[in-house]
Amino acid sequence: MALSTGDQSQAVRNGLRAKVLTLHSMNPRVRQVEYAVRGPIVQRALELEQELCQGVKKPFTEVIRANIGDAQAMGQRPITFLRQVLALCVNPDLLTSPSFPDDAKKRAERILQACGGHSLGAYSVSSGIQLIREDVAQYIERRDGGIPADPNNVFLSTGASDAIVTVLKLLVAGEGHTRTGVLIPIPQYPLYSATLAELGAVQVDYYLDEERSWALDVSELHRALCQARGHCHPRALCVINPGNPHSSRQVQTRECIEAVIRFAFEERLFLLADEVYQDNVYAAGSQFHSFKKVLMEMGPPYAGQQELASFHSTSKGYMGECGFRGGYVEVVNMDAAVQQQMLKLMSVRLCPPVPGQALLDLVVSPPAPTDPSFAQFQAERQAVLAELAAKAKLTEQVFNKAPGISCNPVQGAMYSFPRVQLPPRAVERAQELGLAPDMFFCLRLLEETGICVVPGSGFGQREGTYHFRMTILPPLEKLRLLLEKLSRFHAKFTLEYS
Amino acid sequence: MALSTGDQSQAVRNGLRAKVLTLHSMNPRVRQVEYAVRGPIVQRALELEQELCQGVKKPFTEVIRANIGDAQAMGQRPITFLRQVLALCVNPDLLTSPSFPDDAKKRAERILQACGGHSLGAYSVSSGIQLIREDVAQYIERRDGGIPADPNNVFLSTGASDAIVTVLKLLVAGEGHTRTGVLIPIPQYPLYSATLAELGAVQVDYYLDEERSWALDVSELHRALCQARGHCHPRALCVINPGNPHSSRQVQTRECIEAVIRFAFEERLFLLADEVYQDNVYAAGSQFHSFKKVLMEMGPPYAGQQELASFHSTSKGYMGECGFRGGYVEVVNMDAAVQQQMLKLMSVRLCPPVPGQALLDLVVSPPAPTDPSFAQFQAERQAVLAELAAKAKLTEQVFNKAPGISCNPVQGAMYSFPRVQLPPRAVERAQELGLAPDMFFCLRLLEETGICVVPGSGFGQREGTYHFRMTILPPLEKLRLLLEKLSRFHAKFTLEYS
Repeated sequence: MALSTGDQSQAVRNGLRAKVLTLHSMNPRVRQVEYAVRGPIVQRALELEQELCQGVKKPFTEVIRANIGDAQAMGQRPITFLRQVLALCVNPDLLTSPSFPDDAKKRAERILQACGGHSLGAYSVSSGIQLIREDVAQYIERRDGGIPADPNNVFLSTGASDAIVTVLKLLVAGEGHTRTGVLIPIPQYPLYSATLAELGAVQVDYYLDEERSWALDVSELHRALCQARGHCHPRALCVINPGNPHSSRQVQTRECIEAVIRFAFEERLFLLADEVYQDNVYAAGSQFHSFKKVLMEMGPPYAGQQELASFHSTSKGYMGECGFRGGYVEVVNMDAAVQQQMLKLMSVRLCPPVPGQALLDLVVSPPAPTDPSFAQFQAERQAVLAELAAKAKLTEQVFNKAPGISCNPVQGAMYSFPRVQLPPRAVERAQELGLAPDMFFCLRLLEETGICVVPGSGFGQREGTYHFRMTILPPLEKLRLLLEKLSRFHAKFTLEYS
Repeated sequence: MALSTGDQSQAVRNGLRAKVLTLHSMNPRVRQVEYAVRGPIVQRALELEQELCQGVKKPFTEVIRANIGDAQAMGQRPITFLRQVLALCVNPDLLTSPSFPDDAKKRAERILQACGGHSLGAYSVSSGIQLIREDVAQYIERRDGGIPADPNNVFLSTGASDAIVTVLKLLVAGEGHTRTGVLIPIPQYPLYSATLAELGAVQVDYYLDEERSWALDVSELHRALCQARGHCHPRALCVINPGNPHSSRQVQTRECIEAVIRFAFEERLFLLADEVYQDNVYAAGSQFHSFKKVLMEMGPPYAGQQELASFHSTSKGYMGECGFRGGYVEVVNMDAAVQQQMLKLMSVRLCPPVPGQALLDLVVSPPAPTDPSFAQFQAERQAVLAELAAKAKLTEQVFNKAPGISCNPVQGAMYSFPRVQLPPRAVERAQELGLAPDMFFCLRLLEETGICVVPGSGFGQREGTYHFRMTILPPLEKLRLLLEKLSRFHAKFTLEYS
């Protein structure tokens, strides 16, 4: 609050009255929101970049943003087919141009036919363009080995975040001891903590087991639930698979998913399955199972009754089209009247961005083997996934060679979440500065190397353990240098405080 | 709740247990949200379209959606220059193509330079691409005759709706009698009532004066404020200029705006100025004045202290690019710490859609007279605005010829909000059916003519008066037929219930 109080005393000195809207008078829930992935460390990274531009001397020549899963910002090239079709949709005059393959033109015409006024510039219905909802449903059916998906249960969104917030909004009710509690994994993706804070719901932490490569253990779910009961009403369980921030055995086994579903059913919890990394699975032997598929294959009483919302996005996967803000949620066994309420709530924002909807359509129905664009599309897609797999391996190797750093295998997604030993004197120093010890470490790392990673405290971690989240997205050679630089810095930092 | 209760008894019959999430257990605030522009009447329109597709015989051959300001859905063609630049941004391979003008290529390169990884597919910073914030600030300066605008006070958003919701979120605090109250015009755009309901804030209605073509009267603001005090804490005042749903002398005079600002300052209200129709001003003699400009020209104590948020969008204006969800808010005199909190809140959603940001950049900095694309751009822009002006005039003329319908001049925006006389027996019949009388009228209109308009009750109106909102967007000849058909239906409806 320093700033605002400062402003106000300033205001008084200038004979101005206090503002209507101040830190003290504003929405207290918003004040409590924290969002580490774009928190103070990223603000500082921005300042450092500006200082570098102004020619200020630094021990580094560029800031490397390994803080956020933003593939194209890290140099990944967009998939040609996706951008060809989108360009045709944006500017249909190009449909007569010889420089686009026929299948791209057909796809663009098909999408435009489904748009109001045959234009991306018209609003769509609030749940998203019907044709695209149907294509998403077919994608889900293929993904889940033929288990049916109903387009009317698919709602397009402004990235997955938007859909996650919408479903959480539906779930929040009660006051005091009856307030809705939502179980979320620790470490977690801070969208969850931020949204629950804003909605005034109770965040119920369950810890993933780092020693077992971040496995989800149902006995820990029980512990968390029992502790939560009495001071809130736990009504939902969030699972992130493959995992974020760590990307380890958070490619969950089928057995684990079945156990989670049984737990949710017995404890009457609405399930939220964050599956935006479903296309990012690298490790040999690990395979993505969707919660929907496992639920349906479990049969009664689970299949027909357990309420589930599953989220996907165009931001991650091989395409990494974060800027288009495309995504969807599929709801399963949701009360029909509640589903109408969800649609009503979505309608207040009119519709998700139509270019993002079009992009999602291409992601869920890529070129078929008989299409002219198939070969290039497959080659580009495989190249991206192969490089991510190599980066995942490299990250694990380099970190585990470094004393005081341990890193679980990166089985999926696009992050590593290594654990770092911090010397007691560094912890004390951090406490003097009023910083979380790993925030202190990450800030020093940024100032001395230009490497921007997010402290584990921003995602949650067991008391007394310290981590940071780093994406594996920089180009391979750059990533190698970055990993080595980071390991050397940690050694130096440890020495300095021993 | 019928459906959910129905579902549950159904569930019981099938030996299923009740859902975790039901109409009864869900977020009660969400349940209270209403959004007329996409409410039941639009659902019914959708059903009718499907029935027509299935060959069901109707007294009409197509449903005409005059319910929402969606220009391109009504056949308006996108502005060529905007789409050319966007296509180049989406697919930079086209930058070498001879079929694009040089200025379009330069603009695309300039935007891509400002994107992470030079791609629309990267996230931007949460406040929007810095270059575009600077272009928006320059646009505001030109619009306001040189009054300075700071890019750091400009935040890009997912359409204006997103920014309006964000600012309202900041303002909501307190419980019971201290809950935040927000003054909104009646009739209003239902985003405001919906958002206040969801946030649990108190909606404080002030009525616009239909007899004086929907003028805003400060004495009415006083009345509304006094009545509100005691049962809530009024902290903000929303003004929509040019107006929506009516588009009448809601192109406010400078004197009116000054009076509103004085009122807000004296009563310590944060001002929200919804100015998304600032480019849509047709009527001779009426001119758009921005609240920012008037505020600054009023000088002390107002200029340096009155807190203001002004909203704009790419959805309206001459471009009508609703589907891209572009928009911005400029905040004036906002507490610096609160502004940081706003940025934090925006960061949880990562960033606004980048294609929408790019589009906004083109809207705020169109081709200059020396640019190759200038002539065509101007011609297309003028054609759109001229046709809207003609449609505005036509709407007023036809409606005012019809007995029992009266329509204020449409001075701006893209809507008419005519008042309709409904015979007492029709009002009784509606009440028997549990419908608002004008909802009953609009539903009958839809069923018998295929014309979809929104009842005035969805926007609010004085007790005992009845209206509907109709866009003026259909092509001119289609609009003429529609207006006459609607007038004839009203005559028939009146006869039927006399």
